[in-house]
Amino acid sequence: MSAAQVVHDVTVGDYTDPATVFAFAERCDVVTFDHEHVPPALLTDLQSRGVLVRPGPEALVHAQDKVVMRTRLAAHGIPVPTFEVVATPEALVAFADRARSAKGASTGWPVIAKTSRGGYDGKGVWKIDDPSTAEEPFTNLAPGVQILAEEYIPFTRELSALVARSSSGQAVAYPVSESVQADGICVETTTPAPGLTEEQATACQRMALEIARDLEVTGILAVELMQRADGTVVVNELAMRPHNTGHWSIDGAVTSQFENHLRAVLDLPLGDPAARAPWTVMRNVLGGTRTDLVEGLRHVLARDPGLKVQLYGKDVVPGRKVGHVTAVGDDLDEVRRRARHGASELRSES
Amino acid sequence: MSAAQVVHDVTVGDYTDPATVFAFAERCDVVTFDHEHVPPALLTDLQSRGVLVRPGPEALVHAQDKVVMRTRLAAHGIPVPTFEVVATPEALVAFADRARSAKGASTGWPVIAKTSRGGYDGKGVWKIDDPSTAEEPFTNLAPGVQILAEEYIPFTRELSALVARSSSGQAVAYPVSESVQADGICVETTTPAPGLTEEQATACQRMALEIARDLEVTGILAVELMQRADGTVVVNELAMRPHNTGHWSIDGAVTSQFENHLRAVLDLPLGDPAARAPWTVMRNVLGGTRTDLVEGLRHVLARDPGLKVQLYGKDVVPGRKVGHVTAVGDDLDEVRRRARHGASELRSES
Repeated sequence: MSAAQVVHDVTVGDYTDPATVFAFAERCDVVTFDHEHVPPALLTDLQSRGVLVRPGPEALVHAQDKVVMRTRLAAHGIPVPTFEVVATPEALVAFADRARSAKGASTGWPVIAKTSRGGYDGKGVWKIDDPSTAEEPFTNLAPGVQILAEEYIPFTRELSALVARSSSGQAVAYPVSESVQADGICVETTTPAPGLTEEQATACQRMALEIARDLEVTGILAVELMQRADGTVVVNELAMRPHNTGHWSIDGAVTSQFENHLRAVLDLPLGDPAARAPWTVMRNVLGGTRTDLVEGLRHVLARDPGLKVQLYGKDVVPGRKVGHVTAVGDDLDEVRRRARHGASELRSES
Repeated sequence: MSAAQVVHDVTVGDYTDPATVFAFAERCDVVTFDHEHVPPALLTDLQSRGVLVRPGPEALVHAQDKVVMRTRLAAHGIPVPTFEVVATPEALVAFADRARSAKGASTGWPVIAKTSRGGYDGKGVWKIDDPSTAEEPFTNLAPGVQILAEEYIPFTRELSALVARSSSGQAVAYPVSESVQADGICVETTTPAPGLTEEQATACQRMALEIARDLEVTGILAVELMQRADGTVVVNELAMRPHNTGHWSIDGAVTSQFENHLRAVLDLPLGDPAARAPWTVMRNVLGGTRTDLVEGLRHVLARDPGLKVQLYGKDVVPGRKVGHVTAVGDDLDEVRRRARHGASELRSES
């Protein structure tokens, strides 16, 4: 709903209702997405009516369904955690028991359980430490949703490899970002990821480009990666839309992920994804004790005339993403300090 | 009308019609402008009804009426051309004759004649070379409009000093730009102005800040300057709104003139006006032989992934400003070449 505040021509309606979506799409040259939750059958139907859907449902399903995604990436030789669809808590326990031997560890616990569909911002993901909590993921399971059991990856940090790919196949890779999560929500990104060697960065970018090509993605593809202490990476999630880990690009890259998403969807040549400064830190503004952000804004803008503030015009609810700030510059410590100060002052933490 | 294509809440109506303007302003916390042509009496009326008008009519009149502006600046010691309001062609000739002795030249010709109000993009300005054409400015003169005779300044180039000033008096100065005009229309700006010494640049910025303070401008003030061969400058025009000579700031400055105009009008602290790269060249896209700009856009984007293209969504009419392109970089020749190529390819000149 944030975009609706600043866009001239808006249709507000239920994206799962075929009549609403068809009436909207009829007037469009091409249809794209801001989230992954539009039902695939509806999109296939749109396509059969001659509507250009980008990314297409065949690609998008890999961002909608984690079982489909893991299966496809594994078949393609892309590193993913060991995984299995489990139908019962007992099967989840059995998976953990088998994982022990595969890992050569004294125990297969913890394991990760995830819903195949519908999760976001940490919702639909459980870290299961022992059999006593194995029933949790199966409680209140929506129809058609499966539970995926996954090897727990002892990652030291998360990375995001963001690429844009046009429908005719041109693709560009953004610098790889480090992403910091808290309670399953992205709170900060640093671009480029500090300490990542050029070789590692290139490998991440190549992997993301390969996935985009293999799945025939149109638009932005964000590949969220878990990096182990030895530097190796495993794919965690895919998103096929402008992504929180790419918000730095609005004020930090030559071409933002939003512009490149649109160029890709419209099959226009893609813009330069390079960073404009040595370091860019994006910090999410999560709802805090302030409900009116203007007072905080006044302080932040006065203290740091170079900080870029993006507020989404949403009602402030504690923990909700209501905006982000971006700092760019030559000195990472200073850039990070500025971004953190700006975000915490806006939500009134200080 | 370009903004109306991308803004959610738009009222389309005649800005000279009191009922339309009052009904619109009633719903606003503050009212500002994209051009100078709203009648001053209407703005004063708005103010007396309690509407915040920024810049206020007392300031804005200096961008609306060249006689008021020249008189005020001259009284304040700001360098302006010698000028006089002339009521007849004969008075214009007499002004030129007197100008001769003042200049110590063999002739006072040419002189410049301008309408006091309503001119833009070269309209309402005449270079009068001799008495035979002195009648031209007086033909079809609108009621209430005066003719201003001015000393012809043999300038070598035009500069633009852009500042933003908030209603509580905070002000920032953008780097000074060189502006190139053709047929009275700005076609290109280079920022910073090449060859301008730091001393000269600071003097221009100080002058613009002084004018903004003296006239109590709120928002962007663009001071268009004529620079003589000896480096001295004379004020040509004032504009109190985001200005063509500041369009480079959208893609070339830390904070664009549009953002700073809004911050100023809302009395928020102003953003950093610094350039993001050593050189920024903005080139206007004037309507040419192409009526559909998309084909040109495809070529331009493919050839130069770092070029920023802003198209206004206007119908293409030969000579009309329908967009602009901005190139930034370290090498001025290269940056200028890129901007010129992009603009001419879009209008299909090449």
